[in-house]
Amino acid sequence: MVTANTNSTRSKLRLRASISLDGYTAGPQQSKNNPLGLGGMRLHQWAFELAAMRAMLGLGDGGIINDSTPIIEQHFANVGASIMGRNMFGPVRGDWDTDTPWDGWWGDNPPFHHPVFVLTQHARAPLNMEGGTTFYFVTDGIESALHQARQAAAGKDISIAGGAQTAQQFLRAGLVDEMTLSLVPVLLGSGERLFVNQGDDLHGLKLVQTIATPEVVHLKFAKP
Amino acid sequence: MVTANTNSTRSKLRLRASISLDGYTAGPQQSKNNPLGLGGMRLHQWAFELAAMRAMLGLGDGGIINDSTPIIEQHFANVGASIMGRNMFGPVRGDWDTDTPWDGWWGDNPPFHHPVFVLTQHARAPLNMEGGTTFYFVTDGIESALHQARQAAAGKDISIAGGAQTAQQFLRAGLVDEMTLSLVPVLLGSGERLFVNQGDDLHGLKLVQTIATPEVVHLKFAKP
Repeated sequence: MVTANTNSTRSKLRLRASISLDGYTAGPQQSKNNPLGLGGMRLHQWAFELAAMRAMLGLGDGGIINDSTPIIEQHFANVGASIMGRNMFGPVRGDWDTDTPWDGWWGDNPPFHHPVFVLTQHARAPLNMEGGTTFYFVTDGIESALHQARQAAAGKDISIAGGAQTAQQFLRAGLVDEMTLSLVPVLLGSGERLFVNQGDDLHGLKLVQTIATPEVVHLKFAKP
Repeated sequence: MVTANTNSTRSKLRLRASISLDGYTAGPQQSKNNPLGLGGMRLHQWAFELAAMRAMLGLGDGGIINDSTPIIEQHFANVGASIMGRNMFGPVRGDWDTDTPWDGWWGDNPPFHHPVFVLTQHARAPLNMEGGTTFYFVTDGIESALHQARQAAAGKDISIAGGAQTAQQFLRAGLVDEMTLSLVPVLLGSGERLFVNQGDDLHGLKLVQTIATPEVVHLKFAKP
């Protein structure tokens, strides 16, 4: 039986991010047509070549199995809700395409299949998509989003779906219970950094496991 | 027999750096009294606890052996010359203590025991120290320093002893043959970054090996 109010058994807030050797989680010049920024796809090739990732994203058969497979399987397992920034959803009202309100990057059947809480300045009614994904728009900050996500997750974990600024806010507040950094041995040169204005404190997160392949080194952190 | 003029057998230019999760090789507020910067020692604890490191630095007996030991042993093995920036040597003429010309951070018997080429704007006669270390002061740039170091090394490898700006110059010029990053899972928050103005190109360096301990993850890069 899950008891949501004790630390030992409560659901965990989890962050997984792919990061370049020079610290970027996305390349420069992010736009609607290139949400990963210039060169940003280089951070995700290791994942998209995996059969496990292709299956989760509905990209069809094919793909490979390697030592990164458990990282992707664990990423998607036991998640009851996600939290993302508005740019990860797509403009709610916005910077791009203001004439055409739209329903985000994720298509009619987003790959979440659970409630997703979008941090935004702009209130909007919940958006029900196919396949079990509902986007909720949260205008009162990360603590509220986490509270709502935890209730929705009903004992399962909560995943921070990005982007970097959203991850930074949760890290800075010491709210992240588990973090997996997938370090890709390339340089992007510029773009969006994960660790900005973080001070010198990982808020109790300790390196607990390293899994290396030639394409990516996964660093798993947890609170002991 | 070593043939210095062919690529296949020429001595290698090697870079090893300890780097924080947020990309710093030294903390903020570096000074004569704190050359590693605030918190910078956190990047080097894994090395200083090793028996191999204590032996090389003449710190006496004691210390441990673990999976990081080969990294330190390889770092010191087969090096015939080093190259460093002026701040790694200490001010040649300088920013600090201008009334007292001095002989650098390294004491009477520096731990190099081979020729060390110091990149500087200020010409100075070579400085012979105890134990086989001679500091040579190079005022005409990194290519000249590398040429002189390669001649002095007589077929052995050349080590870039830092700091970050010196490493950056050699990386940017594509001159580094092997790079070992010792990634320490802490944040420093600010300080001196290794990867600045590097563009998006590692100049042919590829990840070839990862060695992980709970304290540090060593990423070894080489040109195939």
